[in-house]
Amino acid sequence: MQTLSVALGERAYPIHVGAGLLGNANLYAPYVRERRVAVITNPVVQPLYLERVQTALAQAGADSVPILVDDGEQAKSWAVLDRVFDAMLVARLGRDSMVVALGGGVVGDLAGFAASVYQRGIPFLQLPTTLLAQVDSSVGGKTAINHARGKNMVGAFHQPLAVIADVASLDTLPERELRAGIAEVIKHGFVLDPAFVDWLERNIDQLLKRDRAALEHAVRRSCELKAQVVAADERESGVRAILNFGHTFGHAIEAGVGYGEWLHGEAVAAGMVMAAELSERAGTLRPEDAKRVKALIGRAGLPLRGPKLPIERYLELMQVDKKAAGGRVRFILLEGLGRATQRGDLDARLVRESIAAAVQ
Amino acid sequence: MQTLSVALGERAYPIHVGAGLLGNANLYAPYVRERRVAVITNPVVQPLYLERVQTALAQAGADSVPILVDDGEQAKSWAVLDRVFDAMLVARLGRDSMVVALGGGVVGDLAGFAASVYQRGIPFLQLPTTLLAQVDSSVGGKTAINHARGKNMVGAFHQPLAVIADVASLDTLPERELRAGIAEVIKHGFVLDPAFVDWLERNIDQLLKRDRAALEHAVRRSCELKAQVVAADERESGVRAILNFGHTFGHAIEAGVGYGEWLHGEAVAAGMVMAAELSERAGTLRPEDAKRVKALIGRAGLPLRGPKLPIERYLELMQVDKKAAGGRVRFILLEGLGRATQRGDLDARLVRESIAAAVQ
Repeated sequence: MQTLSVALGERAYPIHVGAGLLGNANLYAPYVRERRVAVITNPVVQPLYLERVQTALAQAGADSVPILVDDGEQAKSWAVLDRVFDAMLVARLGRDSMVVALGGGVVGDLAGFAASVYQRGIPFLQLPTTLLAQVDSSVGGKTAINHARGKNMVGAFHQPLAVIADVASLDTLPERELRAGIAEVIKHGFVLDPAFVDWLERNIDQLLKRDRAALEHAVRRSCELKAQVVAADERESGVRAILNFGHTFGHAIEAGVGYGEWLHGEAVAAGMVMAAELSERAGTLRPEDAKRVKALIGRAGLPLRGPKLPIERYLELMQVDKKAAGGRVRFILLEGLGRATQRGDLDARLVRESIAAAVQ
Repeated sequence: MQTLSVALGERAYPIHVGAGLLGNANLYAPYVRERRVAVITNPVVQPLYLERVQTALAQAGADSVPILVDDGEQAKSWAVLDRVFDAMLVARLGRDSMVVALGGGVVGDLAGFAASVYQRGIPFLQLPTTLLAQVDSSVGGKTAINHARGKNMVGAFHQPLAVIADVASLDTLPERELRAGIAEVIKHGFVLDPAFVDWLERNIDQLLKRDRAALEHAVRRSCELKAQVVAADERESGVRAILNFGHTFGHAIEAGVGYGEWLHGEAVAAGMVMAAELSERAGTLRPEDAKRVKALIGRAGLPLRGPKLPIERYLELMQVDKKAAGGRVRFILLEGLGRATQRGDLDARLVRESIAAAVQ
């Protein structure tokens, strides 16, 4: 097991990465003793890990109640959240109780937001069981539900007490979700760490084979990189935005085909290709580096092209003003492998061309 | 105008108290320049003050959109909150926008909570227009909506950027609401400041006559006292609980007769009488001081007795375990006028007797 820290002053917390951690009572003990705990999970994760977690929580001295929420993005709704509150109130969980989020990014976002506003805020633990959640959504304290008019429109920055990332739980992850998680791992390399990009180019096949050591390294390094950015800019008022590399295009893809059709990581992968195209056209990324971006995404079995939508539809979904400059929309560009920058002054023509170059 | 400060480090903020402040663009200017602002208010306050506030905001350089919510406690619901989010999204308010809460406690709680979770949190200003909101709910950052299973069960601690308490807005306040607000003013004296109790005994008639100078002093001193407690214990993990004097009984009254039947301040007034009876029985308050508590509440025209409900119903609503000790429920007792303490070890018999002594 490796432990790293998210340096956020009084909100600092550890991230434990290793195999077999979900059943380790010692990891829970510092947080849960004599607390009542709501374990929020979904029907896919429940049969795999709930019993193990509840047993370890009991060994650590906590009395836990499971609360099941729907699987998938539609769970990030007020209706589901309200049922969570209802179950917590029925179980008489007070302000000294705690939430444990056991599952992927949806469970983490929903359970974290539930914790942040239940009785004006109680603490929570993140137990991410998907690669995407382990390397991305469980770290940094972003929680949210969706609104009919937009994704993640209602939420909070609420840092967990700890993140416990059990890489053994990735054994049960569907192949497609593994690859989608790798998209965010790769992204962390592209925007922050040239050496990690090199490592990924050498080890991508090991990751796809779910080699434990490779997964543990990839999760740890991703968390380390993300933790540094979060510590520097907790509320995303500046540098944290570079973690959105590929996401402006990616969100347009997800919204354009309907959320759920494409996995988030798949949309981000094709979005990163578009962003690399844009970086090349804007003159910040050398063509040979743009090639390496595409090659690594391709080797990970991730989509290199976005869905077949009219380019105008892409622009509309990204809220790019078609008349003038790409304008108000800020894009994250690569300035090399491992270095990113934010630009709000791009010509819409370049954006258009970059989409055209990477659309099906 | 008098200005005091809530000392909360990086979340510190000023409270401005005076007559005619709502139309003063200079007070808004430090916060709103070049921002888009949602002014959340209700149909009662709108015709009285909205235009004045929007004009001043425009003079201060802000572009504002009004959002109307229902009047009364039922506005503190998810359904209303969701309509607020909808209006904010339609108006394309981004993460750099701001909320202004213009109204009483309900508007402040709802608008403050909306601000705390909209796009993971945007800042807000409190413009309290009722005495209750000016002396209590607008100060301290407590925001919330209600859940079918309990009041204020979903919320956040979200401190405003500033509180602007215009005592001239109390001119339009219905008599009954004025008195209900005075209940919380009196409470601040009872738990924190003997000299303020003396002042209130001398000036209660001036307050009821809405004498501007008396109101300004009462609002300022209440805010000062509350601000000290909030600064010492922002998230109510300790000393802040003393502000709940009279509220354990008061909440039982409100819940027992249905929220809205009794105003919050009226329920707190009768609750304070019960709590004084309990303090006397528990031996912490001298009988002559308990008399002064009741006399001041009576002179304010506030109820000295709770509604006619079975005593067992009161206990049930307060979740006092009937079999054993008053037990887990913690009561705030007076140890004299201007000094309070928290006790969780009271005999249920004393609680019962105290209710019986002050029930209709």
